[in-house]
Amino acid sequence: MIPRYSRPDMVAIWDPQTKFRIWYEIEAHACDAQAALGVIPKANAEAVWRAKDVTFDVARIDEIEAVTKHDVIAFLTHLAEHVGSDDARFVHQGMTSSDVLDTTLNIQLVRASDLLLTGMDRVLAALKTRAFEHKDTVRIGRSHGIHAEPTTMGLTFARFYAEMDRGRKRLVAAREEIRTGAISGAVGTFANIDPAVEDHVCAALGLIPEPISTQVIPRDRHAMFFATLGVIASSIENIAIEIRHMQRTEVLEAEEFFSPGQKGSSAMPHKRNPVLSENLTGLARLVRMSVVPALENVALWHERDISHSSVERAIGPDTTITLDFALHRLAGLVEKLVVYPENCLKNMNKFKGLVMSQRVLLALTQAGVSREDSYRLVQRNAMKVWEKGADFKTELLADAEVTAALTPAEIEEKFDLGYHTKHVDTIFKRVFGA
Amino acid sequence: MIPRYSRPDMVAIWDPQTKFRIWYEIEAHACDAQAALGVIPKANAEAVWRAKDVTFDVARIDEIEAVTKHDVIAFLTHLAEHVGSDDARFVHQGMTSSDVLDTTLNIQLVRASDLLLTGMDRVLAALKTRAFEHKDTVRIGRSHGIHAEPTTMGLTFARFYAEMDRGRKRLVAAREEIRTGAISGAVGTFANIDPAVEDHVCAALGLIPEPISTQVIPRDRHAMFFATLGVIASSIENIAIEIRHMQRTEVLEAEEFFSPGQKGSSAMPHKRNPVLSENLTGLARLVRMSVVPALENVALWHERDISHSSVERAIGPDTTITLDFALHRLAGLVEKLVVYPENCLKNMNKFKGLVMSQRVLLALTQAGVSREDSYRLVQRNAMKVWEKGADFKTELLADAEVTAALTPAEIEEKFDLGYHTKHVDTIFKRVFGA
Amino acid sequence: MIPRYSRPDMVAIWDPQTKFRIWYEIEAHACDAQAALGVIPKANAEAVWRAKDVTFDVARIDEIEAVTKHDVIAFLTHLAEHVGSDDARFVHQGMTSSDVLDTTLNIQLVRASDLLLTGMDRVLAALKTRAFEHKDTVRIGRSHGIHAEPTTMGLTFARFYAEMDRGRKRLVAAREEIRTGAISGAVGTFANIDPAVEDHVCAALGLIPEPISTQVIPRDRHAMFFATLGVIASSIENIAIEIRHMQRTEVLEAEEFFSPGQKGSSAMPHKRNPVLSENLTGLARLVRMSVVPALENVALWHERDISHSSVERAIGPDTTITLDFALHRLAGLVEKLVVYPENCLKNMNKFKGLVMSQRVLLALTQAGVSREDSYRLVQRNAMKVWEKGADFKTELLADAEVTAALTPAEIEEKFDLGYHTKHVDTIFKRVFGA
Amino acid sequence: MIPRYSRPDMVAIWDPQTKFRIWYEIEAHACDAQAALGVIPKANAEAVWRAKDVTFDVARIDEIEAVTKHDVIAFLTHLAEHVGSDDARFVHQGMTSSDVLDTTLNIQLVRASDLLLTGMDRVLAALKTRAFEHKDTVRIGRSHGIHAEPTTMGLTFARFYAEMDRGRKRLVAAREEIRTGAISGAVGTFANIDPAVEDHVCAALGLIPEPISTQVIPRDRHAMFFATLGVIASSIENIAIEIRHMQRTEVLEAEEFFSPGQKGSSAMPHKRNPVLSENLTGLARLVRMSVVPALENVALWHERDISHSSVERAIGPDTTITLDFALHRLAGLVEKLVVYPENCLKNMNKFKGLVMSQRVLLALTQAGVSREDSYRLVQRNAMKVWEKGADFKTELLADAEVTAALTPAEIEEKFDLGYHTKHVDTIFKRVFGA
Repeated sequence: MIPRYSRPDMVAIWDPQTKFRIWYEIEAHACDAQAALGVIPKANAEAVWRAKDVTFDVARIDEIEAVTKHDVIAFLTHLAEHVGSDDARFVHQGMTSSDVLDTTLNIQLVRASDLLLTGMDRVLAALKTRAFEHKDTVRIGRSHGIHAEPTTMGLTFARFYAEMDRGRKRLVAAREEIRTGAISGAVGTFANIDPAVEDHVCAALGLIPEPISTQVIPRDRHAMFFATLGVIASSIENIAIEIRHMQRTEVLEAEEFFSPGQKGSSAMPHKRNPVLSENLTGLARLVRMSVVPALENVALWHERDISHSSVERAIGPDTTITLDFALHRLAGLVEKLVVYPENCLKNMNKFKGLVMSQRVLLALTQAGVSREDSYRLVQRNAMKVWEKGADFKTELLADAEVTAALTPAEIEEKFDLGYHTKHVDTIFKRVFGA
Repeated sequence: MIPRYSRPDMVAIWDPQTKFRIWYEIEAHACDAQAALGVIPKANAEAVWRAKDVTFDVARIDEIEAVTKHDVIAFLTHLAEHVGSDDARFVHQGMTSSDVLDTTLNIQLVRASDLLLTGMDRVLAALKTRAFEHKDTVRIGRSHGIHAEPTTMGLTFARFYAEMDRGRKRLVAAREEIRTGAISGAVGTFANIDPAVEDHVCAALGLIPEPISTQVIPRDRHAMFFATLGVIASSIENIAIEIRHMQRTEVLEAEEFFSPGQKGSSAMPHKRNPVLSENLTGLARLVRMSVVPALENVALWHERDISHSSVERAIGPDTTITLDFALHRLAGLVEKLVVYPENCLKNMNKFKGLVMSQRVLLALTQAGVSREDSYRLVQRNAMKVWEKGADFKTELLADAEVTAALTPAEIEEKFDLGYHTKHVDTIFKRVFGA
Repeated sequence: MIPRYSRPDMVAIWDPQTKFRIWYEIEAHACDAQAALGVIPKANAEAVWRAKDVTFDVARIDEIEAVTKHDVIAFLTHLAEHVGSDDARFVHQGMTSSDVLDTTLNIQLVRASDLLLTGMDRVLAALKTRAFEHKDTVRIGRSHGIHAEPTTMGLTFARFYAEMDRGRKRLVAAREEIRTGAISGAVGTFANIDPAVEDHVCAALGLIPEPISTQVIPRDRHAMFFATLGVIASSIENIAIEIRHMQRTEVLEAEEFFSPGQKGSSAMPHKRNPVLSENLTGLARLVRMSVVPALENVALWHERDISHSSVERAIGPDTTITLDFALHRLAGLVEKLVVYPENCLKNMNKFKGLVMSQRVLLALTQAGVSREDSYRLVQRNAMKVWEKGADFKTELLADAEVTAALTPAEIEEKFDLGYHTKHVDTIFKRVFGA
Repeated sequence: MIPRYSRPDMVAIWDPQTKFRIWYEIEAHACDAQAALGVIPKANAEAVWRAKDVTFDVARIDEIEAVTKHDVIAFLTHLAEHVGSDDARFVHQGMTSSDVLDTTLNIQLVRASDLLLTGMDRVLAALKTRAFEHKDTVRIGRSHGIHAEPTTMGLTFARFYAEMDRGRKRLVAAREEIRTGAISGAVGTFANIDPAVEDHVCAALGLIPEPISTQVIPRDRHAMFFATLGVIASSIENIAIEIRHMQRTEVLEAEEFFSPGQKGSSAMPHKRNPVLSENLTGLARLVRMSVVPALENVALWHERDISHSSVERAIGPDTTITLDFALHRLAGLVEKLVVYPENCLKNMNKFKGLVMSQRVLLALTQAGVSREDSYRLVQRNAMKVWEKGADFKTELLADAEVTAALTPAEIEEKFDLGYHTKHVDTIFKRVFGA
């Protein structure tokens, strides 16, 4: 976790304080269920709730752990200090540390997912606003980095919206993947604890009981979770790369917002660097790097080995914190992105009308000119644009062989940008609904 | 694609023949839609279907491509040889090569998914059969590779079933991710072709129109697809590792089927190697290795760059073919796996009753003995087992301090395996339904 | 292996024919050593060389393998058909299949390395030629995609040269990593074969005896090998990305060579796509994807498990063939790259002198103007360039407050490009030597 | 960085305090060089060294950065508070932030390498000690997890030694890769600073001047560095997996040291979990996960983009800290590993002599028995062992057909373990030298 790439809400989820709070709730709910089953006295179960408003003392727990060398026991010892050791004696009965640890991890991941969804919602809202704002801002579409045909800036935002919206759906599914809990004992057989306890704890904490666990909740769930975050990160990179391209000195169709006070801005006014989107490119790599170890974590030995644990201690917080930060950085970037419609037009007209050559070629063919001749006609006028900076339309209108096939009005019509934008509304309807 | 790790059905999906057949269908359906829109003559659209039963000549197309340096043009030229160049002249009108190529890739991936689902069904069926067969085959559960508490072989199969069943659901979702088509032109604006054509072609071929495409279908879809295959591969590895462990010389609780004729089997009867599951471990790595490049493919420049293409030419066939092969190899392995229930028992009893020490400890505490004393009592008897190979239950029954707290019957009861298997049916119901 | 991304020389290394030839040589040399030790009769060893010029019949070996289910035995059977079964009876004595297979893999990787080194040499030669050719072709340097200070096109080529030269050194080291052979038996103890045989075979085939092997040659060597190829691939991507940027419509400082005959070139003269460098970007991803499975291959169980084998069957050929192809594609691209020096200048002058603002700022400060004032002076003139398209130098010369501090000659001097290129020769000397 | 997987020495390298100290040294040495060149007054250069013993106030620098939004400027401002702003005014002259930042990163990586080398030395020493200690501790070698032929525990340690020794050599090379510095200005042309400054600073700080840099030191160097750490991590995993296997309940040939005080040890004496080696398996995944982003960092745009920076902020510290911790954990584990030679023997004899079947088969053939008959003889006796638990040697000695070919002494000889260990000294000499 790198402070400068962290937001406090997500950091809090991974705070020891939060962890102990969740441990406590699991233990307390489990006591309720055990009392209901008659396994432990009701009074003792109730007593555990006395610590309901306690802020657990992390330093104290660490101190105890230094002696017991066992984190859960340390916590239980500390809990007894609050509840009273007599009442606390039934806490955790029949349970295994993993029951608490694995269920807690999943609760943290669910909460992290909720925050990530909020972040995605902000990104989506920003993209939608900017898409409608620039629905008709014409811009050259590019394949291979080379001018192709006109499109609009709004379509660019709209496709990122659609992509992020898919990401959101994937995240909802990923959240569901890890929304399970397990209180099933040392090897998952419920030998020492009734499945009813698991049912109760899970219901109380918004989880689904893991249908079949071993000592641990199966790690294919977590692999799917982190793989999904990796895909979302790649979508962030996709948007970031587009913005970096738009901000290139030679392109400058859009620019990251640069606050007037930011030093250096006006002595070198061209030197405004797309540092946020470059940073997002790097953050995407960081999020993605958790995918492979998460996949490697799936194949545990028999009912569990602990190789996954150190990996999750790192990627659990780091990946969610980084993605959360990236989403909000992206949202802010999109919200405030400065778009330069006039530069969009200027770039499109760099080769004075040449991007329309394809349309002219088609029109000539449809007007009955042979393919070969159509090509020759387009080519000879295109070369004048390319070599001498002439204007394509002007040249065509002055070419007798061209005007023999197409009227001036027909030629003019081929340069109408409306031709390219006529289906923008249709596409917007597909993306944003009616 | 490695022939020895390939099944013909999946290989066929990636055959040039199949590819050209799909190209043809896209073009023919597009002509129908264009004719319905009045863009091209109905007769010409109908004429294209003359090639309906043609087996396209791949060598001939390659020959043309060698001249035209363009695969789609080469195909269209060849198609004209079948349809007649006059009738073929409207084929592909208003379309871009990518419309055909990207839609085709997705159709291939959908078909590949269908085959993979069949493979998963076979794996699931095998796991279910073996789970019920060995529902009550008691076996020691292990954490960290160390004996923990009893479980059953059926539970092992059942949890792999549950994991694979999750994998199946993920694959269904992944199939949906890439089940889209696009006929939207050079930069995705439908400038030269009506969206109705896309609608018609997609409906005819079982696809959803991509809501917003550029020149290409967005690659986050494919990233999600390959990431999902990677997770499934890890689940395969998970099963493979378990089998490899079970077949270890010292464990031998199960063994890959070894046909009586297989050389070397009886001169070194212990030397039967789990080569299939080891191979599956390697194949899982191969499937997984497509995840990172698929993630890197998402961020294309502007409306497309072609960097993704070479990657997909490799991982499209290779990954689906390898996973398909792995699923069937796994299914066969599970179907025929030889389980040794007696060895399961023998292993469990390696430390004569010691795995029950936890239960005894708990019983003593519940019988009122202090935690410290309970621990001391269990320990001193446990050490006799560990050091002298004594039998734990016998020792406990002979320990006056123990029998002061627990009756012989109570002690006996702690060694009842039924205690550990009492919830197996509950778990099976969760996994397999009523 | 994708035919379109393959060169025959590298493909040949992975041909079954080549493999069997290497097997043969290992076996024949081993027989010589065994005969020298007196373990087998000299006559028999000599007889094996009768097959020296035989082209082994791959189909026949496959046929035998279909029966024996063992590739090495199938080969030996076929060899006996050439040598005579009596003389062949001592072939492979005391050896294990892995002795042959692993040593062969390493020989193939060494040969692959040699080809790759040839490819790198061609890339290096091309980069060097272009570097000297464009040593003084001034070009704007960019950080963050934004104009910074002038540099030269030659420096761009020179830094790629330096990077590839490091890559070459790494490859030489990687080749050394896998240049070992092992003839050490089933678990690497030489129980059934004298170490002298290994010594002899390795010496004959240009290998170093693996100091300690198990059944296999340790896989950390191969992990290092493939990791190195991954780094080289990233360097290829680095060059490819630069070229893609240079060819962008708005930049156009260089362009991939486009043969006059290539279709479509002149009707849309701007539409020349950097498809080779985009392709190289994708190929780099393919090469890199072998790194993770190669790392996962290291941790084999005990003296070996076979999980690495399927991985290597894929990445051995695929990765070396792809990298080999990529190197030659890159070399050709660099050799023929069309550089546009006038566009380089045009781009640099896009903001009429503004890139020199930093120098002017420094000069003012050094002339005794306070930091704040210097900044203010530069800023107010810079804004005229930025907002009204004025010329920076002209504005400065007309600014009385500026000329109070700097003479016109001093101002002129700040716009001298020689200032930026004065150390180019020094850098070239560092990179290319005296 | 996860505190529990961190050692203070390595953490200190990444401390802001250390970073500022290095910044300071770079700036101070640069001033010396500038003064020598006559670019700045000698007195000012000397004055900078006044801060030589200052402990920079990180909080104060952060405070300034909050205002200036620029870390290097914040530091320089703070430095001026110590040196005096008049004397400090020439600090950093002609330099670019990256000159300081990139050179500092490399110094940190060099120092990290030195610590890692120390860690590797400790691992190597431990492996060597244990190798010699158990040079002759016979143990069954296994392929595929199945008993193959005898080997020794010492050979196991020796091969890990050889592997780690290769790792050490790779690390030395990786350290050399990133042992460069650059003081070359905004785009690497030395326009504003003489190359002599770079030479002086690098010499003073133990670095090599980067032959050609842009704004940054080329990232292929760092890619190679992290790729190398990834390979070393895989070797750690390789050792960890071996130990985990050895400690399995059914194998128990070795065990991680378990301090007598560790709770739970004696009530469940079999329940000693190989948690250190499992943890190392996870840590290896964490180290490896930096490889892919480091490879993705190579292709920066033009003279630099900043996408690599966030990645390095994470993987720089995290990967070196984790690997450093893992090396020392591994060293401790190996140093104290409890080996059970008697269990090694017991395991080897699990199938009473059957591992020698191969030798007997060979002996029969060499004694003139046909291959088919030899096989039949071995097989029928082997099956008695396999099925009835008979002793192989006893059965052979009682088989008239066997004794017709081999004398009892010859049969006995086949069961001599010395046969398998006769080359152990040779191998040790290869690994450890004379």
